[in-house]
Amino acid sequence: MTVTRTIHKQTGNFLEDFRPGQVFRHKGGKTLTEGLFTTFTEFAMTANPLAKNARYARAYGFDGLVVPPGLVMLVAFSQTVEDVSENARTNREYVDMRFGAPVYVGDTLEVETKVLSVVPHRKDPNLGIVHVQSTARKNVGTPDETVVMTWQRKVDVFKRDPAAELHPGESAPDSIDCELWLPAYDPAVDYKALAHLSSPDSYFEDFEPGTRIEHSRGRTITSEHIHLTAVLDNTSQVHCNQFMIDQDPERYVGGQLIVFGGIPFTLCLGLSSPDVGDNALGDLAYPTGRHTAPLFAGETVFAATEIRGVRDFAGRPDLGVIEVVLFGHKFARADGAPASDGAPAGWTKVPIFELERRIAVKRRSHYA
Amino acid sequence: MTVTRTIHKQTGNFLEDFRPGQVFRHKGGKTLTEGLFTTFTEFAMTANPLAKNARYARAYGFDGLVVPPGLVMLVAFSQTVEDVSENARTNREYVDMRFGAPVYVGDTLEVETKVLSVVPHRKDPNLGIVHVQSTARKNVGTPDETVVMTWQRKVDVFKRDPAAELHPGESAPDSIDCELWLPAYDPAVDYKALAHLSSPDSYFEDFEPGTRIEHSRGRTITSEHIHLTAVLDNTSQVHCNQFMIDQDPERYVGGQLIVFGGIPFTLCLGLSSPDVGDNALGDLAYPTGRHTAPLFAGETVFAATEIRGVRDFAGRPDLGVIEVVLFGHKFARADGAPASDGAPAGWTKVPIFELERRIAVKRRSHYA
Amino acid sequence: MTVTRTIHKQTGNFLEDFRPGQVFRHKGGKTLTEGLFTTFTEFAMTANPLAKNARYARAYGFDGLVVPPGLVMLVAFSQTVEDVSENARTNREYVDMRFGAPVYVGDTLEVETKVLSVVPHRKDPNLGIVHVQSTARKNVGTPDETVVMTWQRKVDVFKRDPAAELHPGESAPDSIDCELWLPAYDPAVDYKALAHLSSPDSYFEDFEPGTRIEHSRGRTITSEHIHLTAVLDNTSQVHCNQFMIDQDPERYVGGQLIVFGGIPFTLCLGLSSPDVGDNALGDLAYPTGRHTAPLFAGETVFAATEIRGVRDFAGRPDLGVIEVVLFGHKFARADGAPASDGAPAGWTKVPIFELERRIAVKRRSHYA
Repeated sequence: MTVTRTIHKQTGNFLEDFRPGQVFRHKGGKTLTEGLFTTFTEFAMTANPLAKNARYARAYGFDGLVVPPGLVMLVAFSQTVEDVSENARTNREYVDMRFGAPVYVGDTLEVETKVLSVVPHRKDPNLGIVHVQSTARKNVGTPDETVVMTWQRKVDVFKRDPAAELHPGESAPDSIDCELWLPAYDPAVDYKALAHLSSPDSYFEDFEPGTRIEHSRGRTITSEHIHLTAVLDNTSQVHCNQFMIDQDPERYVGGQLIVFGGIPFTLCLGLSSPDVGDNALGDLAYPTGRHTAPLFAGETVFAATEIRGVRDFAGRPDLGVIEVVLFGHKFARADGAPASDGAPAGWTKVPIFELERRIAVKRRSHYA
Repeated sequence: MTVTRTIHKQTGNFLEDFRPGQVFRHKGGKTLTEGLFTTFTEFAMTANPLAKNARYARAYGFDGLVVPPGLVMLVAFSQTVEDVSENARTNREYVDMRFGAPVYVGDTLEVETKVLSVVPHRKDPNLGIVHVQSTARKNVGTPDETVVMTWQRKVDVFKRDPAAELHPGESAPDSIDCELWLPAYDPAVDYKALAHLSSPDSYFEDFEPGTRIEHSRGRTITSEHIHLTAVLDNTSQVHCNQFMIDQDPERYVGGQLIVFGGIPFTLCLGLSSPDVGDNALGDLAYPTGRHTAPLFAGETVFAATEIRGVRDFAGRPDLGVIEVVLFGHKFARADGAPASDGAPAGWTKVPIFELERRIAVKRRSHYA
Repeated sequence: MTVTRTIHKQTGNFLEDFRPGQVFRHKGGKTLTEGLFTTFTEFAMTANPLAKNARYARAYGFDGLVVPPGLVMLVAFSQTVEDVSENARTNREYVDMRFGAPVYVGDTLEVETKVLSVVPHRKDPNLGIVHVQSTARKNVGTPDETVVMTWQRKVDVFKRDPAAELHPGESAPDSIDCELWLPAYDPAVDYKALAHLSSPDSYFEDFEPGTRIEHSRGRTITSEHIHLTAVLDNTSQVHCNQFMIDQDPERYVGGQLIVFGGIPFTLCLGLSSPDVGDNALGDLAYPTGRHTAPLFAGETVFAATEIRGVRDFAGRPDLGVIEVVLFGHKFARADGAPASDGAPAGWTKVPIFELERRIAVKRRSHYA
């Protein structure tokens, strides 16, 4: 049969396609299987027993293993990629990321996104910043429909046509009811009998503003990132299409496949987990976050946490809230550089990620 | 203790071992876990919500997430490898591949294979073509035993002894009752409320014979293929034993580990999925298919689909059948070559796979 | 906010921290998901249908797919790494490893370890040998709490301070009640109808002392080992922190990331599985085991089994016990070396692993 027409499908939107106020109900949706749970929860070296030990999670009042916030974020975020950032150069910033209902294996997440603004890039006529607000829900279409996460982000998106005009204006973010669900403290439960399953030095009482914790572990990222990104349905080609990069390396960050930002995001959470997340009941919010340098296969990721504030949790004498900043970094060779700031001689420390976190942490007085 | 005898176990059959009419009831069988489901469904970037969103799949009348045809094929095919192709050089051709009952997580597949003929290779006395018919069933040994897939294939198998005589003759394929099970159209279901979860431009009404769709995404294959192949129980050594290849590179295609053909098979289905599979209720049949060039780690796979025909689906006014050919390709460096046929200058396009498909596709009139 | 103190958290114990008699109740615990099951059972090419085919496993009297001993070991062992071997150079020896209750998907394992002795290294003042006994239980805290595995191991641990004194003395191992649970032989079950699902030549009657079986398959390990190790919660930095190795290559075995020993352990079990494990109902015990050379990404693993003894299984006329030694090896280039001991010319065979095994094997008389 003769081919009479050829269609070059373009997926995703380009800069000029976004209109403030526009709402995307993203395709797909995603049911959290045990396969996905294992692949990511454990990839990230998450140490919180809520995500590892079903007996512990149930004793605490959850329905079973709890999907950790890093994985909720990866799944929810990835649902938005085709519409929002398939044609993006890089993700700039996360704003007002908040968590709601707990997510369990078997839950299906569906996500929608509202466009807030579209702003041209000052220097590069091919790029602009799209600002969006996204919300992930579970049990959609049933009386139990609940928000599990909401967030804003700003992303550098390519133009299809450098000469195209952008849609002007701004749209206000929707007010989304999204507050962290936490199981009640139950005096009848013998929590202390479980205390050996989490670290002994990461209760609320252990945190003091002004402290910086250098987390001890590093993790080298391999080409596994290509597979991990595909498993999340993140379809952005800059993570998985080496041929495309090879055709025009100058156009892409670093001239090679860049690791999807969600991977250092969740990995830094995991690396910090034994020191600050092990006795958390949940992450309330990430007010701001950003990637400050790209990550490539072969590089090793490290993390540190600074404690910025500690406060009571209203209505929950068994808990407190810690306000921290999570930092991720890698090292790059720098001939002749002296040792400094944790980098050995001949290397320089490269910050790659930072994230403000508000965490609900157990008090030792009640749990250990 | 003194070793008094050493056994060098050889697994799999060589060319001279196959007899027309012989039946293999393959060992093992395989229960589809959520781990396997995630690893492969999502590896392949499958976009059809039936395989991603349990709420959607249930609303359509399935029991839960539906194992996509590419994964059914990978699991069923791999069960046959030890007996049929562990000592094969390459897989030549798929014939009359048909699908039956849907496969869900928790189902156990068991497979048997009948040898149809064994023909010596014209040029290479060490090789010959084995033609077999295989059938995969679920719920074996119960009243609910059902065929989920049946197919024929032709494979180039090595001889153990170049001088051995082959078993002559031909055996007719069995008549296997294998027709795609589809959930009934239920006027009481509000399908339109789910329409945003699949792509808006891949309903039956959107396909026109003579159209070629170049799917936009590419996916670079890494050494992950070794792990993926092992997870499938595909034991063929040409996919996972680098030492064996290094001893005699001339004997093996490309002188390196070759990617198991099932991987580009399922990946091409996945790459085409947003454009032609998103609104499919199932794949009826793959009348023919073949691998036209090997694939190696580091290469990037692309896909295209040509629409060859469209027709009504007897008894199902809500559906239509599209007849397409799925093509997979990669690019190879070719110094001085001009840009042509989608390949940039300095590169040449290398077709790696083609597959005739008959797909049952929803009509917009009934679903959106 | 000014950082007023910086904490460099050190995880894991160093040589001088261990005291004979000390007991670690390890953190975390781990629920066996279907994701973990798939990743490892199938990674290792395990052929026993008990771990692959739920219909077969249920017919034999198990509750469902049975987690194979190699994976029980990987999960249980990894729970002990942070406390025992996060700061280890290498694992020397396994002693008296025994299996108890079967492990299924959904079970949660928790592990504790007793320190038996701490002995300085003869040559290297930075190292010493820690001897521990570990026990893994499931259903902890319920009336059904059961031991699933117990074992001792000796591990080379680094000192934090080369001048530190070690804790002297010895503590006797606890007597742990841990005997392999096996389903009863049920004359009402038609086992023979399932016989085609396992290999025909690996029944008890097929094994003869003095036989060495060279298993036919090899498997090349890739950088996948970094991911696999993380998924197990094995936090030892020598498996996943390339930057650390690059700073001081002399300090680490081979000057590169070393593959976690549990990976060749389970892979050798898998490679031997079609020949010696396919008709096993379970592994009773591994009296001794050791790693004899490190394994690195890019190397190909092979295995062989020597049959050392065969005996009746008291009270189970349907079973017998085989006593074997499992060997793992790889090949290294050795210029000018003649072909010998299975190595081709120019290569030398490098033993990497050996394990004494006691296996409960079905008799053909009762099952086929």
